[in-house]
Parts: sequence; structure tokens; C-alpha cells
Amino acid sequence: MRNIKLTIEYDGTNYHGWQSQTNAVTVQDVVKRAIESLTGEDCDLVGSSRTDVGVHALGQVANFHTNSGIPGEKFAYALNNLLPEDIVIRESEDVSPDFHARFSSKGKKYRYLIYNSRKPSALLRNRAALVHLPLDIEAMQKALPYFLGRHDFSAFRASGSDTKTSERTITGISISENSNALPGPCSKDSKLIELEVSGDGFLYNMVRIIAGTLIYVGNGKIKYDDIPAIIESRDRRRAGQTAPAHGLYLVEVYF
Amino acid sequence: MRNIKLTIEYDGTNYHGWQSQTNAVTVQDVVKRAIESLTGEDCDLVGSSRTDVGVHALGQVANFHTNSGIPGEKFAYALNNLLPEDIVIRESEDVSPDFHARFSSKGKKYRYLIYNSRKPSALLRNRAALVHLPLDIEAMQKALPYFLGRHDFSAFRASGSDTKTSERTITGISISENSNALPGPCSKDSKLIELEVSGDGFLYNMVRIIAGTLIYVGNGKIKYDDIPAIIESRDRRRAGQTAPAHGLYLVEVYF
Repeated sequence: MRNIKLTIEYDGTNYHGWQSQTNAVTVQDVVKRAIESLTGEDCDLVGSSRTDVGVHALGQVANFHTNSGIPGEKFAYALNNLLPEDIVIRESEDVSPDFHARFSSKGKKYRYLIYNSRKPSALLRNRAALVHLPLDIEAMQKALPYFLGRHDFSAFRASGSDTKTSERTITGISISENSNALPGPCSKDSKLIELEVSGDGFLYNMVRIIAGTLIYVGNGKIKYDDIPAIIESRDRRRAGQTAPAHGLYLVEVYF
Repeated sequence: MRNIKLTIEYDGTNYHGWQSQTNAVTVQDVVKRAIESLTGEDCDLVGSSRTDVGVHALGQVANFHTNSGIPGEKFAYALNNLLPEDIVIRESEDVSPDFHARFSSKGKKYRYLIYNSRKPSALLRNRAALVHLPLDIEAMQKALPYFLGRHDFSAFRASGSDTKTSERTITGISISENSNALPGPCSKDSKLIELEVSGDGFLYNMVRIIAGTLIYVGNGKIKYDDIPAIIESRDRRRAGQTAPAHGLYLVEVYF
């Protein structure tokens, strides 16, 4: 039986996240139905990341097994004809039988977009989190090195999650101002701030809590050099708020 | 009576353009109703540009007269509370009684976004025109100087329009590749190309026909040095296709 890997872009606005649920439309359900309609087979579609309601993806990865004769790279074209416009298969390919989108994953990269402006943006309304108070980007950048490396990130995990360990390794983290962000109005008083975080894995809501904590660093509620103590506390209440889902993008999954 | 100037951003996806119509929701109608609900007065709202169905604006300008006591700069906040999220008043201010959003306008700047990729983009689907064939950006750039200055742009005007003169002056035109466009997937094979055009005024569909003609230059259907002959012909059939509305943005109105 063949094993097909899909790289998927989606606008998460109209979906109840990736993972199949009863009584809600999810990205996994919609892609799975398109595959079943194309191949005529039942499809067990495995995704790398269970993105939440409203979270976007530039490079979600999924795989499924099939006896179909369709060439690997043609699945993208065939499925895009069946999918709604807000879900696009960017790439499709045959992979080895043991490839598993979740268990084979060695890491992920996420992006978080903050629109820092006194006014909301119509064009970025579902694409970036609006923050009214001016953010000190330099202070936010000074906080970043403390996140790097292997830590117990319990302070940055949504309560109620039940993973075996709360240790994760962050391999890269950066913040930059994108003065040429399109589409959307950026000016002296309206900036798009881009946070990127890579790591071997992430706890539930971890990137959004890191984003929310960095927003607090930017507006002065948390000092940048308080980050080590917050990490060490393992106390969710010490970190910042969970930043909104619609600013988050799953950019890439590493294998 | 006071005269209030509004600078308006909107996502044109869900509207039947700017201009009021019967049996269709337009941006003008929605803003006008919000003003009437705020002031309790009938409102005659004048816009600078009659943007088409699906066209976006970062800086549409409109004005209206009122006896309301609300401070000029507070209209933006008050109206944003009444408007849907896809229409945002970016600025509001008192202006002189003779200011007229259409007749006082001295020029406009438009942007046209082209997503040049073999695959569509979910996140840019209503924000940039998809062009599959690879575009030669250098050839497109070589075509630009021919558009500058005062010309009879009849070849770049949608048929059926009835303006007195078809002469217009283009004061600035540029094309650049935005490698850091957000949100949306850009890579070696997927580029966002940004056309910007400024001028003293534009004929109906003129920017979209210029964009469509430059796309033909980019894919080799038209040679860049054919542009002078196309302009001189005043023949709409010699120029390229009208590029789709959803790639077009009214960026700024000059007074």
C-alpha cells in the first residue's frame, strides 16, 4: 500500500481547528472527505499538529495510505479541485511506508503575527492579533534568548493538558518588524510584528502563551529579565495571557 | 455645519463595491448607516473612488456634513464600534466646509498584488490575483516608463465608460517582488509581485487593465517595447485582459 504525504496551507478562520470532531467542521474532515471522494477508499488521515480553532497553516503535514494509482505529485492538483478555496494542498508526494506525520516529526516552526496599532485593520482582522498599546520591540527581543534550549515549559502550558513530560527544546526564536507586510496598512503608528519560534515540540497553547508573555514584555507588564524566573516557577499564572488563535501560523514541520 | 473627513480601510470581499446600489450591500451603504445611527441625522456620504466589487481599500476617503457635537477625531472610534470588522475607519477629522472627497481629490495611489505561483494560496485567495505562468519581473519593469506622463489611455479603459476625456497623467509606477509578504506562503517558486501606480485620476478599470497588460509582458504575450504602440492605438483590444478585482487596493487619495 502506498503512503502519501501532503503539505497543506489553510486559512483557519472558518474551521473548528484541524482535528475531527462531531458537530463541527474541521480541516481534517474536509481534506479526508476530498481524499475519499478522489480515491473511493476510506481514508485515515494523520496530521502533524492539532491546530486550534482559528489557527492558520502554511505547511501543515498529513499522510494517508492508499491503493490508488494516482501519481504522488498529482494528488495536490486533484484534491485542490475538490477542496474549498481556504484549504490548499501545496505539495503531495509518495513517502516510505513507515512515514507518520505525527510520530516521524522532529520539530516544528510557528509564526505569530501581532498588529500593533491604535486602530484595528479590516484586511488583517483574522490574520494578526491586534495590540493597541505601543510595544517595545527591543525589550521583547532581549527576552528571547531566555527561551532558547531545553526547559520545563509548564508555565507556558494551558492547564488541563496531559502530556507525559513538559520539557521541550526551543531551537530558534526571533522577533522582527515587517515594515512591508502586505496586505494591510502599516505606517509609523501601525506595525506588523512577527514572532517565529522553532522547537522539537510544543505543549498545548505554548506558542500563544509565549506570544502573550512577550506582548507583556513589550508593554512593560513583565520585565525581559523576569523570563528565567517565570520559566523556573513552572507556574502558568506567572506567564502572560494566551494570545488569540488567529495570529498563529504553523509554518513548517521538520522530519 | 461641520464637514468630517474619513479615511477608510476595507476588505472588499463581502461587498458589492463602494457605491450604493439597490439590492446589494455596498461599503458606502454600511458606513452611511453607521453615521446615521451615530448622529441621528440623514447622511450624504461622498467617496473619493467608486471601487468595484471585491476591490479593497487601505485609504478610501469620504466626507459628510453634520451638526453633531462629537469631536472630529472621535468619529473613528465611535463608528468602528458600529461597523462590521471588515470596514475600519482609520482616521476622522474636521475639514473645511468646501472639502469634497471626490472633487477636491488631486490624485490617487493604487496597489495591485499578483501571487505568482503554480499553486493557489488559501490565505491570499481574496487578496492577490493568482498567475500560474512564471512572470519575468525585469521585463515588466522595463515596460513601466512608457506609462509615465500624460497620455490618452483609451486602450486601458473598460468599454462603456463615458468620461469627458480619456487623458490621464501617471506620476509614478513601480513593480517589486515582496519576498517577505505576510500572511501567505512565498518561496523560490511562489512570489508576491507588487505593482503600485499613482496618477491624477484613473479611467474605469484602468489600473486592472494596466496590471493585466503587465502580466502579459511578464509571460511574453506582449513585448515590453510594444507598450507605446498600444497606448497610441487607443484600442482596448490591443492591451491585456482586465486583471481580477481582488488583487486591487486603493492605497491613498491625494488632496
